[in-house]
Amino acid sequence: MATGKINVSVENIFPLIKKFLYSDHEIFLRELISNATDATLKLKHLTSIGEAKVEYGNPIIEVKVDKDKKRIHILDQGVGMTEDEVKKYINEVAFSGAEEFLDKYKDAGKDTGIIGHFGLGFYSAFMVAEKVEIITKSFKDEPAVHWVCDGSPEFTLEEAKKKDRGTEIILHIAEDSTEFLEDAKIRELLTKYNKFMPIPIKFGTRTETLPKPEGAKEDEPAPTEEVDDIINNPAPAWTKQPTDLKDEDYKNFYRGLYPMQFEEPLFHIHLNVDYPFNLTGILYFPKLTNDLNIQKDRIQLYQNQVFVTDNVEGIVPEFLTMLRGVIDSPDIPLNVSRSYLQADGAVKKISSYITRKVADKLSSLFKNNREDFEQKWNDIKIVIEYGMLSEEKFFEKADKFALYPTVDGTFYTFEELEAKIKDNQTDKDNKLVVLYASDMEAQHSYIEAAKAKGYEILLMDSPIVSHLMQKLEGSKENLSFVRVDADHIDNLVKKEDTAISKLSDEEKDRLKENLEKVISADKGYTIQLEAMDSNASPFIITEPEFMRRMKEMQRTGGGGIFGMGNMPDMYNLIVNTNHELVSEILNTKTDKKRERLINQSLDLARLSKGLLKGEELTKFISRSYDMIK
Amino acid sequence: MATGKINVSVENIFPLIKKFLYSDHEIFLRELISNATDATLKLKHLTSIGEAKVEYGNPIIEVKVDKDKKRIHILDQGVGMTEDEVKKYINEVAFSGAEEFLDKYKDAGKDTGIIGHFGLGFYSAFMVAEKVEIITKSFKDEPAVHWVCDGSPEFTLEEAKKKDRGTEIILHIAEDSTEFLEDAKIRELLTKYNKFMPIPIKFGTRTETLPKPEGAKEDEPAPTEEVDDIINNPAPAWTKQPTDLKDEDYKNFYRGLYPMQFEEPLFHIHLNVDYPFNLTGILYFPKLTNDLNIQKDRIQLYQNQVFVTDNVEGIVPEFLTMLRGVIDSPDIPLNVSRSYLQADGAVKKISSYITRKVADKLSSLFKNNREDFEQKWNDIKIVIEYGMLSEEKFFEKADKFALYPTVDGTFYTFEELEAKIKDNQTDKDNKLVVLYASDMEAQHSYIEAAKAKGYEILLMDSPIVSHLMQKLEGSKENLSFVRVDADHIDNLVKKEDTAISKLSDEEKDRLKENLEKVISADKGYTIQLEAMDSNASPFIITEPEFMRRMKEMQRTGGGGIFGMGNMPDMYNLIVNTNHELVSEILNTKTDKKRERLINQSLDLARLSKGLLKGEELTKFISRSYDMIK
Repeated sequence: MATGKINVSVENIFPLIKKFLYSDHEIFLRELISNATDATLKLKHLTSIGEAKVEYGNPIIEVKVDKDKKRIHILDQGVGMTEDEVKKYINEVAFSGAEEFLDKYKDAGKDTGIIGHFGLGFYSAFMVAEKVEIITKSFKDEPAVHWVCDGSPEFTLEEAKKKDRGTEIILHIAEDSTEFLEDAKIRELLTKYNKFMPIPIKFGTRTETLPKPEGAKEDEPAPTEEVDDIINNPAPAWTKQPTDLKDEDYKNFYRGLYPMQFEEPLFHIHLNVDYPFNLTGILYFPKLTNDLNIQKDRIQLYQNQVFVTDNVEGIVPEFLTMLRGVIDSPDIPLNVSRSYLQADGAVKKISSYITRKVADKLSSLFKNNREDFEQKWNDIKIVIEYGMLSEEKFFEKADKFALYPTVDGTFYTFEELEAKIKDNQTDKDNKLVVLYASDMEAQHSYIEAAKAKGYEILLMDSPIVSHLMQKLEGSKENLSFVRVDADHIDNLVKKEDTAISKLSDEEKDRLKENLEKVISADKGYTIQLEAMDSNASPFIITEPEFMRRMKEMQRTGGGGIFGMGNMPDMYNLIVNTNHELVSEILNTKTDKKRERLINQSLDLARLSKGLLKGEELTKFISRSYDMIK
Repeated sequence: MATGKINVSVENIFPLIKKFLYSDHEIFLRELISNATDATLKLKHLTSIGEAKVEYGNPIIEVKVDKDKKRIHILDQGVGMTEDEVKKYINEVAFSGAEEFLDKYKDAGKDTGIIGHFGLGFYSAFMVAEKVEIITKSFKDEPAVHWVCDGSPEFTLEEAKKKDRGTEIILHIAEDSTEFLEDAKIRELLTKYNKFMPIPIKFGTRTETLPKPEGAKEDEPAPTEEVDDIINNPAPAWTKQPTDLKDEDYKNFYRGLYPMQFEEPLFHIHLNVDYPFNLTGILYFPKLTNDLNIQKDRIQLYQNQVFVTDNVEGIVPEFLTMLRGVIDSPDIPLNVSRSYLQADGAVKKISSYITRKVADKLSSLFKNNREDFEQKWNDIKIVIEYGMLSEEKFFEKADKFALYPTVDGTFYTFEELEAKIKDNQTDKDNKLVVLYASDMEAQHSYIEAAKAKGYEILLMDSPIVSHLMQKLEGSKENLSFVRVDADHIDNLVKKEDTAISKLSDEEKDRLKENLEKVISADKGYTIQLEAMDSNASPFIITEPEFMRRMKEMQRTGGGGIFGMGNMPDMYNLIVNTNHELVSEILNTKTDKKRERLINQSLDLARLSKGLLKGEELTKFISRSYDMIK
């Protein structure tokens, strides 16, 4: 039996890096600036613990593009490398310098802020460069070195004359990557990936206008000055303590994150946890519309202030992806699939931590300023309702602060609503009947009728409301939601009372016969005679709750009963036997007049329910013009 | 100056492979089965050219799961490997065997069907296995060998007793990957990735019922037989020539691809090109709804019959991502970002080839069976209209076959429409006025009025129709789209005629004064007196085209004028001075009656335009019940 060692031939590792390591070539700049930041923070740490006897000062990172020579330079003033370190960290691939450093200094605590998570970062330079140079001088008293490699595994290494501490990387940009020689492109990348990195990054200069000296002439131009153009904000709000920030600071940070967004966020949630995982961030509740689809991809994910992605699917619970803001955590595994992410224990913990923080914030807003919370309700309800539907733990918390507005603008919690309507809206089977409207305009006449009975009517107009009602009916006992047009007013909340009809049984039979003669069965109405208040409408069209809700649930993504989405709508025509007009229909002698009365009444009932359309509406209008004259 | 070679230490290459190479661990099975297929096809090629003096036979690939021992076995009957080949292909990482083979035999043409595109495939086994064994016997007369490696770079290699040609891979599944020991999981993966691979893949057996022998008793059970369960279709429709396929074959293939889809596709397009790139595939036009969002991710991308992804963004032009089907091309770079894909020359060519093929197919459907094309129009128009908007080249072709249906169900091409309406619908400024409705029910009375004038009225009800009209107006001269309710009937197509009014100027002034007294300015109507046909409606509400369309474009994603989406709707109230009712309003003596006439007429006009809602509608209905009595 032979044994041996698998041999990785270096001729093949470069194509591997180029092809497989990163799908996005542009991240080379993120990687190199991460390394530069890393080197600078290392120096900061070493000086702070006295291991480096040099002045830390105010180091910056500089990026320069030399379009003529097709080069990009990245310069830092960090620890630098000795010859031995270049051999160790650069010449040995897949050896993460930052990792070893972290191992060595891990007792020093997590506040050193070393990035170094990206491991093979430096070699990503070869995705865009045909040759890479490193000129570096360590903070230690050793000569500077100059390393050159053209992408083959051969490199050269010699002494260099560099006097200042730090590292300069020179990329000789390859023919297929010349887009990266454009200032605008580099500025775009710096803004995308490095906007909040902790060391100031200089990219060129800009001209600033100075105040005119006193006594200057009107037409004399103001003096100007060239200043470094620092593209990043090294201390973004989420890295600070909440106690050090004012409301205005949070708003300013939001404006910087979303410069195209003119509306202010409603409120923010500052995330800050370091056990059992590290996570900081700020989430903002923006004003939300009812369209669930277009609102995602707005939370940005960072790792130690380096931008990673704006797709936080799998990390943030789905119902919260409608929020905005940043999350920064070194503990989120990156190079794995979304499905793996969702199964990862640490990520699950992060996700439930975020859910809990959001629920707590909402709860405290509700408790501390109910009036303000009510004002914001319509702009945030979609998130809360969606969360109640999708996360059981969130449901339990939100059930205490979720609001149910009435058509009159009163906001109840479920508990308050229950107390308020218990007496008047409990039916004969001891079920609490919650009445609601989904459209105040379209259901106006039904709402008015229910109000006249002293009922409270909720306005439930979210797109997912049918699912939410189903969920509430399932998790609370003896509860039933009924839309105001689901039945006629005396049946919405069924009581024991029997109504007295003005009509005798014989008259009722005759009326029904008359109605059925005019309103043929193929129109799809089930005719029901009811002895209602004589002031109620003579004809009313209702739509039973169960079928309607099942169909609605089918339309808004699942639930309900399979295939029901395609069933025709079903309506009842309630005829109020106690209404004067109905008596008139019964007592009219001529068929023609009776027909006209029935048809016009039916049309008015359909109009009230929004069912009179097209040709029928045009005819109705034309008939009505004739009647005015 | 020192020179040297960058050293890649193997201790670090395994974590690299595990972590970075593939984001999805499950693809290990795709990779190993690709290798097995590769090895089998290699043998097929070598026997066909006489280099391998063995019987090719009917080789299969077998996958077995041994849950107790925590092992997965993958067996093939392909070329196998000699000891030297194991050393070369397995012990040297990043050395793609298939690539070398292809280099050697590339003159043999492209029909050898070698997969081998995935290079490092074998090592993906270590993503899920803590130990991997290879037992392999080459088709050459050399002893079998047994290779074992536990994921560290050390391996053992010894002679084995295997007699049959081919390779067996044994994965000892790691603790964190035991999900892959479930039969259901493996079946799911085989179905996802290997459903159409060219060598039969056996996964277990299934019981088949045989016919009863003649003379068998009633209650005697039918005999059964255990047969190999072959999970793939080795010769899917797209790999065949269109001439060898019937319409039913295409439909069957569609049913296999989308088993949950009950509706038949409308038609298919067989893609088949080998220069300047290789691409085969079949695209299907399904029935489409008007919802643009939920219809994507339905085209599957394959490379040499191996499933890669169902996200074809960047490869297929966006407007065609609503189609279904498969695309198979080895020429699409995979491990690159979407933005890079879109910039890639080969991908651009593929995208425009697909666009051209789709346009050609549509054009031939239109020419060969106009009636059928018209019947399908409403189910396919969303794709065509979206394509016309987004791809100039597609617009040029589609302009010849895009259909414009009228409210009466006639379908015109633009050219036909122009010929038909030129005489009657050219206005005084020589503009061709195309009238349209967006909703036959809601705009019924306006449509009827326009029909009475002999105008043709298109039904334009796609969600992107305002953008399409804007595009057509921009690309054709002297053309203007006007919705039927954009102006009163005599103004829709403005001619030179001056209408004669029954009313004198004095009467008109008095009428206007009366109207303005009742209809206060804050209701938002601009009152216009017009001398129209006495049979036209007395009051008509119109909504000018330009403002309405700009607002619509804003709502449906861009275009229009910034900020216009939030402007209030603007309406004109046209009062027909030649209508009898208007004379009555003018001649009524009592203020009260005049007010009632004006209000009821305004309400009817608003009803006709769908503007009477909520409380106003309830009041109107209640007033109307009173009027019936």
